[in-house]
Amino acid sequence: MGDLRKDPTRARWVLVRPPTARVRLGSQCPFCPGNESLTPPEIVAYRKDGSSADGPGWSVRVIPEADPYFRIERRLVREGVGLYDRISPRGATELIVESPGHDDTPATMGEGQWEQVLWMYRERLRDLKQDLSIRDILVTRRHRAPGARITHPYSRLTAIPIIFDDVRRKLRECRDYYEYKRRCMYCDIIRQEVAAEERVIRQTDHFLALAPYAPQSRFETWILPRQHHYAYEEVLTGEIVVDLAGLLAGYFRTLAGPLGDPSFEMTLYTGPNRSAKVVPGEWASIAEDYHWHIELTPESYLRGRIGGICVNESPPEEAAARLRESWCS
Amino acid sequence: MGDLRKDPTRARWVLVRPPTARVRLGSQCPFCPGNESLTPPEIVAYRKDGSSADGPGWSVRVIPEADPYFRIERRLVREGVGLYDRISPRGATELIVESPGHDDTPATMGEGQWEQVLWMYRERLRDLKQDLSIRDILVTRRHRAPGARITHPYSRLTAIPIIFDDVRRKLRECRDYYEYKRRCMYCDIIRQEVAAEERVIRQTDHFLALAPYAPQSRFETWILPRQHHYAYEEVLTGEIVVDLAGLLAGYFRTLAGPLGDPSFEMTLYTGPNRSAKVVPGEWASIAEDYHWHIELTPESYLRGRIGGICVNESPPEEAAARLRESWCS
Repeated sequence: MGDLRKDPTRARWVLVRPPTARVRLGSQCPFCPGNESLTPPEIVAYRKDGSSADGPGWSVRVIPEADPYFRIERRLVREGVGLYDRISPRGATELIVESPGHDDTPATMGEGQWEQVLWMYRERLRDLKQDLSIRDILVTRRHRAPGARITHPYSRLTAIPIIFDDVRRKLRECRDYYEYKRRCMYCDIIRQEVAAEERVIRQTDHFLALAPYAPQSRFETWILPRQHHYAYEEVLTGEIVVDLAGLLAGYFRTLAGPLGDPSFEMTLYTGPNRSAKVVPGEWASIAEDYHWHIELTPESYLRGRIGGICVNESPPEEAAARLRESWCS
Repeated sequence: MGDLRKDPTRARWVLVRPPTARVRLGSQCPFCPGNESLTPPEIVAYRKDGSSADGPGWSVRVIPEADPYFRIERRLVREGVGLYDRISPRGATELIVESPGHDDTPATMGEGQWEQVLWMYRERLRDLKQDLSIRDILVTRRHRAPGARITHPYSRLTAIPIIFDDVRRKLRECRDYYEYKRRCMYCDIIRQEVAAEERVIRQTDHFLALAPYAPQSRFETWILPRQHHYAYEEVLTGEIVVDLAGLLAGYFRTLAGPLGDPSFEMTLYTGPNRSAKVVPGEWASIAEDYHWHIELTPESYLRGRIGGICVNESPPEEAAARLRESWCS
């Protein structure tokens, strides 16, 4: 199964593993209703009127990945190899099939279907956070990813025994900012961006959609909840879900229509698992200093990247104006 | 010209700038001897017997990039924008044309030509480090980069007023390691890898070529000088240059031949500019705790990357064995 190895010179983790078994795809889509036998047994699904598991009748369906990067049944091993660190890839990789409709896209799914998907994200995050060896979970969602073989709409949930590199950087910066200012950095960003206006894409009762100050790709968009909370799965209410589903559906329609349907990736960043067995004391304050959020990175128009510094030839102020003017409600 | 902007949530810099002017390339290669008038005037060149600047007769030639990301003449401005940070892109972007031969590649250039290129790297690094507003310089070299328009062999040198993100991570980890162990991390890696053997690709009098413990791409290779020094341009001798040129030329022949000529990027990491005006006190110890080195990252066979964690399906122990067995001296 391989292992998580740390590059000590950059404190960066790499999952080194044998090549993925390429599951032979027949002519039938394994995610379509009626083909449930082509996937591993479902973990959970939203179903109408007593339809039975692993049959049709669902609106959102969660299955384990067939050849996952991280597996729940593995024992967690942390060990040194001389000066190096390795950890066994205990965790979970789940696929959330977002709709029975094979040809659905983020733009066609509509508000109602997105509400169900958002509730399912919450349900899976809550369930997995009961596992005390899981420290961090990300939900990612790719649209028209190059080389993708399955086009049926789905999200991926990855739960791992360490903090994701990207999350660790954010936790560190948010903690340092909080120690210095006694305020959440994201709350301050929201205040400043609302006042400055030029990078605001849209405001709703509960959310701010903005083009970030230093985006890595054209049309990169952050969705920030205006009310401070560190964890998505702890704060959701019916009203918030309706608001967020409406904002996401509008954003996806805007990308798919006026902006030419670029590929994109969506990542839901929620706080790490505070009840995990091995939580470093340094993250003890995340309830105050971290702020859950969503990042959307459409197809990058990057011309270069040198030594980790990215070059973006599309200023966010222009991107925000374009998104505002093109918005498809 | 745009500006360097910091994403405060990740402490990550992005150069936001207008789209690069796509210089119209005629039918003639601007880097070939005889076409010197198609480039900006040369900065320096190695020339035989009194041939004159910006004419043929050179073996290695350095020119400024026509539409550079960083420019030497700009005044350095650092300022806050509310809670954000921005810096003007003062610095330099130079292209080092490695050979008069249009069809030369890293594999065909041979030891003698590589020796000249390595001396030129040193000369440009030394010269640019006299500019006290330049804090960090990287030399990068791409081979068969997708979308590249100029195939004539050249390296790029980028000098900037901040520390590159990638370098900052290394400086931080090396400093922390040194504070804890009172030893250089790279020196310890060299000792451990030589003893373990399984990731060693090749050893010479002055260098160790190894497949790193946690590589991000297949056949990723680090070239580490066995003698501790933080800066490439301060330590080079004729003997070291001959040794390094031989190792690089052999590596490039091995990639181009038995390994199928993948695209790759080479990066020379030398220590930041210690005489720069604004050097944070935290890097004061780099002469002891940092160690110059070269990283080579052939075409990545990455299957995925989630939250900054990269998935590599090619264990470095296998890659090292393959490189050792295929080595073209």
